[in-house]
Amino acid sequence: MTGTGCDADRRTTIYKGAFMIHVQVVHRVGLFRAALVALLRCEETLHVSASHKRPARQETLCPSPHVWVADIDCLDDPARTGKSGPGNGQGGMGALLVLTSERKPGALMKAFEAGALGYVNRDGDPSRLVEGIHRVASGERYVDDSLACDFLQATKLPLTPRELSVLALAAEGSPIGDIAASLHLSSGTIRNYLASAIRKVGARNRMDAIRISQNAGWL
Amino acid sequence: MTGTGCDADRRTTIYKGAFMIHVQVVHRVGLFRAALVALLRCEETLHVSASHKRPARQETLCPSPHVWVADIDCLDDPARTGKSGPGNGQGGMGALLVLTSERKPGALMKAFEAGALGYVNRDGDPSRLVEGIHRVASGERYVDDSLACDFLQATKLPLTPRELSVLALAAEGSPIGDIAASLHLSSGTIRNYLASAIRKVGARNRMDAIRISQNAGWL
Repeated sequence: MTGTGCDADRRTTIYKGAFMIHVQVVHRVGLFRAALVALLRCEETLHVSASHKRPARQETLCPSPHVWVADIDCLDDPARTGKSGPGNGQGGMGALLVLTSERKPGALMKAFEAGALGYVNRDGDPSRLVEGIHRVASGERYVDDSLACDFLQATKLPLTPRELSVLALAAEGSPIGDIAASLHLSSGTIRNYLASAIRKVGARNRMDAIRISQNAGWL
Repeated sequence: MTGTGCDADRRTTIYKGAFMIHVQVVHRVGLFRAALVALLRCEETLHVSASHKRPARQETLCPSPHVWVADIDCLDDPARTGKSGPGNGQGGMGALLVLTSERKPGALMKAFEAGALGYVNRDGDPSRLVEGIHRVASGERYVDDSLACDFLQATKLPLTPRELSVLALAAEGSPIGDIAASLHLSSGTIRNYLASAIRKVGARNRMDAIRISQNAGWL
């Protein structure tokens, strides 16, 4: 690869007359990362590498990949993971395609907020992933059919940001007093937020509310 | 492959003068299963296939693989997953090699009880997995160096089976009364078990005890 400008370099690799798509796989677990790379390298039109996280925008790779294939569990901090705005998905650092599971509408929402253009079911056939990569590489949105129901529910987060942060601290095992201190609120207010969260998600108690929220990907 | 007997068939595939090792990959997530297969198929001496779980002993595959490469999360029911006894690992259905993470001594213990002969760190280099497969295929035990500390702690389960089952039900969001009813005990006794579990794992409260136990792989 030659040239001086980053953008000019991005699409210069050609294989059998076709542009090659540069893919960067993101997964925290080393063996699964290597395995996904091995899977995608079976595709002749993909040029694949990997990392354990997406860099922040200011650390963008040069040349940047055309497509980031990121496990949804690697998107917990949109601020750091190169958030490019909902509905955009490409920004200056390549399109984002996330690997997710069914019944995780909260996680789906986080991916959408991180600017994901593609959504592929982790339980689906590998051919769907390859199809998704080609689609988002050409700027199209790609959503696995099996995730449609989750998209319908994704906007239905029943909790306020405050209730979510209180529940997240409780999930870490913080006692009420510690949660109150860290949020500069009274213990009574924290109890009210927890009671409200339990009621809103239809839980039986605090533990149940945490479990329901974690399963949905809200926490 | 020809022949009539199952055992006679097992080692009949030969590649470049060497016996091929038949490997069966087990992972619940379809895409990761396919990816691990793609990774291992890069090795010429491995013949690789996959399934979403290990069959029970009575459903053993014929011919059975020489090595099962199973993610530790697929071993939660040793009774169903072909438990072959600690320290054995081979039984009549091939050696078991588990993929695990560091700091999960409880999960390691479950794998040991399921008869695992090999223990490979999911965060390690793929070459370690290949090495592990060859070692357990020849009947040797294989433990990733990085998991040594976890093995030292694996036998140190601080909780009694009763405390664990109470904690597991609490983790599912069951209220004290429901736990008491399902275990035919009084609510006071359940509270005592929970208090004892909290003290033993060094937790701050019930939620913290659940979190600590889940992280260690006890729950």
